[in-house]
Amino acid sequence: MNKKGILLVLSGPSGSGKDTVLNELAKDDGIQLSVSMTTRAKRDWEIDGTHYYFVTPEYFKRKIEADEVLEYTVYSGNYYGTPKAAIDEWLNEGKTVVLKIEVEGAANIRRIYPDAVSVFLLPPSMKVLEERLFRRESEDTEEIKRRLKIAESEILQAEYYDYVVVNDVLDYAVSDLRTIISAENKKTSRNKDLINKILKRI
Amino acid sequence: MNKKGILLVLSGPSGSGKDTVLNELAKDDGIQLSVSMTTRAKRDWEIDGTHYYFVTPEYFKRKIEADEVLEYTVYSGNYYGTPKAAIDEWLNEGKTVVLKIEVEGAANIRRIYPDAVSVFLLPPSMKVLEERLFRRESEDTEEIKRRLKIAESEILQAEYYDYVVVNDVLDYAVSDLRTIISAENKKTSRNKDLINKILKRI
Repeated sequence: MNKKGILLVLSGPSGSGKDTVLNELAKDDGIQLSVSMTTRAKRDWEIDGTHYYFVTPEYFKRKIEADEVLEYTVYSGNYYGTPKAAIDEWLNEGKTVVLKIEVEGAANIRRIYPDAVSVFLLPPSMKVLEERLFRRESEDTEEIKRRLKIAESEILQAEYYDYVVVNDVLDYAVSDLRTIISAENKKTSRNKDLINKILKRI
Repeated sequence: MNKKGILLVLSGPSGSGKDTVLNELAKDDGIQLSVSMTTRAKRDWEIDGTHYYFVTPEYFKRKIEADEVLEYTVYSGNYYGTPKAAIDEWLNEGKTVVLKIEVEGAANIRRIYPDAVSVFLLPPSMKVLEERLFRRESEDTEEIKRRLKIAESEILQAEYYDYVVVNDVLDYAVSDLRTIISAENKKTSRNKDLINKILKRI
């Protein structure tokens, strides 16, 4: 009797540290990161197939046509999407599948997977977020300002997520995600079989 | 800014180990057990004011008349209820208030406190439950049979609870409750102020 896995949707503004947190979480047993696909340019430190599948707009559009993209969104002129293929397979194997997803995409996922658990990763403050973007964007202040505005509007969407986790100290944020996954595994809705087993109905 | 505490409702059949689990949990900081009131006879190992307030039927009825009982239920001919007084005060202080409550009572609490988190404590199996009752009830097999029947009907109500925790190894069950409380503290609905604070709206 294989218990179905949890689909965990993680969103957060640029600079909230989604990748760093997920890289740590991915080391745990039973965690399966779903890698998104994007047409945006790869950053130096990013690895194709790990952080994203970096593809051409033509390739992305062909995948959409073939109905092989679970959801996608256009953000800053680039496509971001979730390849369908493996997700249901992993869930049936009982894995916790983690989707890193833009705010808009998350709403779509929740429609398709109502059981999905959604977590919004918050920066400890807008000041800290600004500093992080400053380090990453190498002093393009206009771009930083623009990203901060976007971040603000994204954080306003946090209320539609099930949980919020503040990424101040990395270890704590990762541990919060583990706690959420453990608790979700105790949800009654995920344990009907267990109850029936105790009552010897299955 | 004091974050409001969580009201945790714990139910489980006789023999599921509610008291043992709660005695451990109560050692944690920020946990406040709400002690129920009952008219049933005190068991040898029970302490008045710790496990229950043991009162007379007359006293119990007077408290109901005075509207000082949050909810009550009659079970096996005895009254069980929750004294109102301190609960809201503790919640406002940010404490996690734990109510040990009969299955019927739990439904009432959820109506009065829709934010309450409900946990059903399960025995690992009906066989183990029988053994536990056998040890406790000192071989009154008729009474054990009766209690097992009640237990079965109670476990059927588990599906109305938010979480289920199996009490096989005590430490694991206590740790599961801690995990649930931690995760619930990350729920977005309990962190609106945090989001607004990050956006500097408060």
